[in-house]
Amino acid sequence: MAGVIEQNLAAQGIILHEPASPVANYVGFVRTGNLLFVSGQLCLDPEGNLIAKGKLGADVTVEEGNAAARGCAINLLAQVKAALGDLDKVARVVRLGGFVNSAPDFADGPKVLNGASDLMVAAFGEKGRHSRSTVGVAALPANAAVEIEGLFEVA
Amino acid sequence: MAGVIEQNLAAQGIILHEPASPVANYVGFVRTGNLLFVSGQLCLDPEGNLIAKGKLGADVTVEEGNAAARGCAINLLAQVKAALGDLDKVARVVRLGGFVNSAPDFADGPKVLNGASDLMVAAFGEKGRHSRSTVGVAALPANAAVEIEGLFEVA
Amino acid sequence: MAGVIEQNLAAQGIILHEPASPVANYVGFVRTGNLLFVSGQLCLDPEGNLIAKGKLGADVTVEEGNAAARGCAINLLAQVKAALGDLDKVARVVRLGGFVNSAPDFADGPKVLNGASDLMVAAFGEKGRHSRSTVGVAALPANAAVEIEGLFEVA
Repeated sequence: MAGVIEQNLAAQGIILHEPASPVANYVGFVRTGNLLFVSGQLCLDPEGNLIAKGKLGADVTVEEGNAAARGCAINLLAQVKAALGDLDKVARVVRLGGFVNSAPDFADGPKVLNGASDLMVAAFGEKGRHSRSTVGVAALPANAAVEIEGLFEVA
Repeated sequence: MAGVIEQNLAAQGIILHEPASPVANYVGFVRTGNLLFVSGQLCLDPEGNLIAKGKLGADVTVEEGNAAARGCAINLLAQVKAALGDLDKVARVVRLGGFVNSAPDFADGPKVLNGASDLMVAAFGEKGRHSRSTVGVAALPANAAVEIEGLFEVA
Repeated sequence: MAGVIEQNLAAQGIILHEPASPVANYVGFVRTGNLLFVSGQLCLDPEGNLIAKGKLGADVTVEEGNAAARGCAINLLAQVKAALGDLDKVARVVRLGGFVNSAPDFADGPKVLNGASDLMVAAFGEKGRHSRSTVGVAALPANAAVEIEGLFEVA
């Protein structure tokens, strides 16, 4: 049976799929003490297709980037569920590190990342408010538009 | 009454202003246990204007970038003060993550970041020495020249 | 006398040299509690020469980048040895943050970072599996092809 947070997400139409395991010598998450570090998640939908591909400021609009960041956040939560079994065990979203595939003159990274920040607060309420860094990068794996890593405190 | 570290900074002409709260679903800092994660700070002066705008290697000199990184560091300390009430509670500056808005051939990021590292040691002495990563990014929010995130150990 | 992990590395032909101290107000590592944060390491060989210089997708092949990432990983372990005295004290490799100097259309950062991930598992086995973020950046210090930062849990 899903916990309160996951039911809350389901009521908003968000279903967490089991994350694919990386096909390499790294893993989706590592817990140390009560800190859970989650690997950078690309903006993939449940079928494994990119929600947005290419660069903000060139190929991808801010609105599309915002939706992509939301997708990254959902994938972060899928990893947290795989790690803890239940999202209710999250005491706090500590940090999101957001990487936006950017043309050199793109200055609106925060509007993109808000798609992830809003999802965290939609899921966890006040416990979802996090520290955040947003930077525009030159390239991302698979030419994804957005990649986000996360740090969570476990209750 | 300001603590020893803050008096030390004031003697060097550095006054910490109350940081603006982010106008989004994230916050300036999150504490978990004795670790304080501070969000990426742009090179804004106390009036909210960018100290340096654009790219190192194109629009901004190393000297201007160094001053911008110092400004980021001051903004990190303003967040730490807001979090802890008193900078004297900092046991150690653990890590700075520095993002330098860079033209593709700019190789002097460390000289830029030294502006922040020097400020941390000016404030905290030996406790101010930190681990550091310096990278050149394609774009930053508001076209800022420098963004720096911080991690602090609380006594 | 070297510990088991270091003997294991030596049997694979990997010798850890004493890392150079940064010539600035930061340090190679900071330990807080049982977490060891290691500064971003460039792809330098033991003589201090870059293993690969320039950008993936332009000047550097994926194979060369993979070897460069392996070099960064060796330098991370040299810092860990300097910090702890013995790599056997590592309980877990928690996180690698990988920055690949990238032309704007380079999408194969993960294949580059695998050079570091594989080295961690070659050294530590299952304890070497880590969370990871891979991004393509516009520029790196000294025009290095790869920079990687690390987080380790100490036993």
